[in-house]
Amino acid sequence: MPELYGEIDPPQRLLMGPGPVNAHPRVLRAMSADLLGQFDPEFTAYMNETMALYRRVFMTENRWTMLIDGTARAGIEAALVSLVEPGATVLIVRAGRFGLLLSEIVERAGGRIETVDAEWGAVVPMERIADAIARVRPQVVACVHGDTSTTMAQPLIGLGEICRAAGALSYVDATATLGGMAVETDAWGADIVTGGLQKCMGGPSGSAPITISDRAADFIFARRHTEKGIRRDDLSDGGRPRIASNYFDLAMIMDYWSEKRLNHHTEATTMLYGARECARIALAEGLEARFARHAAAGRAVTAGLRAMGLTVFGDDAYRMSNVTGVYIPDGVDGERVRTRMREDFEIEIGTAFGPLQGRIWRIGAMGYNAMKHKVLITLGALEAVLRAEGFPVKSGAGVDAALESYAS
Amino acid sequence: MPELYGEIDPPQRLLMGPGPVNAHPRVLRAMSADLLGQFDPEFTAYMNETMALYRRVFMTENRWTMLIDGTARAGIEAALVSLVEPGATVLIVRAGRFGLLLSEIVERAGGRIETVDAEWGAVVPMERIADAIARVRPQVVACVHGDTSTTMAQPLIGLGEICRAAGALSYVDATATLGGMAVETDAWGADIVTGGLQKCMGGPSGSAPITISDRAADFIFARRHTEKGIRRDDLSDGGRPRIASNYFDLAMIMDYWSEKRLNHHTEATTMLYGARECARIALAEGLEARFARHAAAGRAVTAGLRAMGLTVFGDDAYRMSNVTGVYIPDGVDGERVRTRMREDFEIEIGTAFGPLQGRIWRIGAMGYNAMKHKVLITLGALEAVLRAEGFPVKSGAGVDAALESYAS
Repeated sequence: MPELYGEIDPPQRLLMGPGPVNAHPRVLRAMSADLLGQFDPEFTAYMNETMALYRRVFMTENRWTMLIDGTARAGIEAALVSLVEPGATVLIVRAGRFGLLLSEIVERAGGRIETVDAEWGAVVPMERIADAIARVRPQVVACVHGDTSTTMAQPLIGLGEICRAAGALSYVDATATLGGMAVETDAWGADIVTGGLQKCMGGPSGSAPITISDRAADFIFARRHTEKGIRRDDLSDGGRPRIASNYFDLAMIMDYWSEKRLNHHTEATTMLYGARECARIALAEGLEARFARHAAAGRAVTAGLRAMGLTVFGDDAYRMSNVTGVYIPDGVDGERVRTRMREDFEIEIGTAFGPLQGRIWRIGAMGYNAMKHKVLITLGALEAVLRAEGFPVKSGAGVDAALESYAS
Repeated sequence: MPELYGEIDPPQRLLMGPGPVNAHPRVLRAMSADLLGQFDPEFTAYMNETMALYRRVFMTENRWTMLIDGTARAGIEAALVSLVEPGATVLIVRAGRFGLLLSEIVERAGGRIETVDAEWGAVVPMERIADAIARVRPQVVACVHGDTSTTMAQPLIGLGEICRAAGALSYVDATATLGGMAVETDAWGADIVTGGLQKCMGGPSGSAPITISDRAADFIFARRHTEKGIRRDDLSDGGRPRIASNYFDLAMIMDYWSEKRLNHHTEATTMLYGARECARIALAEGLEARFARHAAAGRAVTAGLRAMGLTVFGDDAYRMSNVTGVYIPDGVDGERVRTRMREDFEIEIGTAFGPLQGRIWRIGAMGYNAMKHKVLITLGALEAVLRAEGFPVKSGAGVDAALESYAS
């Protein structure tokens, strides 16, 4: 018989990079439940429960709160392709790789791009966003909450109010912060927010939670186009330009998640089980407690790295609590350090993209991994590796500083 | 504490509809393995193994054989949006709902649609496809192998040769047949074929296997557009119109699955584990044995239904082996029967779409459910339900005929 390879048996690796991170064991167990038909009443009940749970995760009252079947990037594209009409002006707030991704997706959707940019490592003050909105009069404003490429979190208070006053719809990519930092959909006044499971939610990549305001839903329903072969008389097609994607057509996806249960894709049952369990775990812990746990881990990582004589990247005032950038010291080969961390300690830390490639590492402490012992183990391992690579580290300084940070 | 709902605990339901069906327990167990980083050498090894396994599942030598992170529909859209340039003529072979879906997706991608149609329940003879190709000179020809909406399998031998002679690229949607009927990518000469896990592969919805010929890959690479922030000098952008989707840009997805490992989405780790296990199970059984198992189950279902006095839908010569349409008898309420099947026997059988809605049920026997005892149990249950609903059935006839079909 030809090669069938072995059973899945991954090394027990501690994933302390910018994500994906290790999933919570309860999530993986929930995913091993047997399947149900997508219109089974038990399954549609699970869908409704998932909607209710993610309303709380997204801190919103939005009726339209559900899952997109794909990775976090699928959620981003579903939001943008559904909001952005060909030729529409879209203002994009960019201060890292994921801001660039938004403009890339909007360009492909046929939007006319305007940007307000900051250097990688900084954020864009809300006044600059407001000025840009006043100047370019966008139909949509899109931004990233936490951009893991720079480890910075963009302040978003006031965004919705400014957008509403200007008649713009707003979109926020919260992939890297959902479940780890406050993603305050309603307090921000954001019209669409999307996330992922593989960062602070503590699940596997492959399902993208999304929440949509009624205002955005009305706009998107006006672009509705019902599929041939399953058209129903009570769903008239809207008057606005049709959405350029079928798979990411949020009007169709909302009809599928509504009481109408109008067939679209076949819901990814097992990923839904996982997404539902991620939310149950997060809400049982309590969002505030969870944010505090991430913040404590982030502070300890930062304190530990500094005590080791390393320089932390970016602006302290806007640092994401769940991922920390740190400069690779002069004379140290960043990739050799990452390899030693992986091979000797079974710990993964992150590399970087674009202008930061080869300049910083990124150390995450997210979801199930935002824990004291995992932070301490990672700092201890990094110290040993740096010493082996000839970089002088005061022994124990990183771990001690992290312990002290936790104690204070 | 607000409602967190209970643990995932679905009823043990036998899914004998047109899919999704119950997953093989080994697949669900494989999916409970811990996660790895997407660029971990162990994980990229799993990706490479998955490519090798699916080459055999797709009966192809195609280098570019991988997974799209989304449901089967995501695979269809990735293929079509990557192949179809705005304004290109696309010939679509349509004889059911999923043929209509192809035209819907192509329209949104900006293709100019030509069709060659057959009634729901029939297939399109290859001569008619050839004539249409000669007449409309399409850039792309798209068709469905097994359309579960009609339970018919479209013969595809000769398609590739005709397309190549006409300078057209070909796409086949094999969602409902992959792993259950022979999906002969290379023998057909098809340029792109996509599948799903939730039918004959015996896994959950949420990952779409895809295979791409070198010819199609060359075409798609000429539409390549590298993402800002991760651009590399050795990857020049091609000269053809850019693909309108980032998430479904097969050029980027191929770069991600290649040795270049150019970052795109975060691979859906758990779904990949599941897809890999689906293929290992299918290949360990042997494709020929697996096709024979599905065919035997399909024959037994058909024989059993006929022995019960029911009329099987569609053309025997082109029947899919894994799903069978059967007319709802006059005076019987189809939805009441489905509800009784579900509530009294925990068995799901399928309803239908469009012109067949309310006229037929669809009974599947796919993947892990294409088994003698499951076929017998389903027929026995259906008999009891029909009797309870007042339809005269000769007791035991369906089960006996199915047993006889298996014995012969």
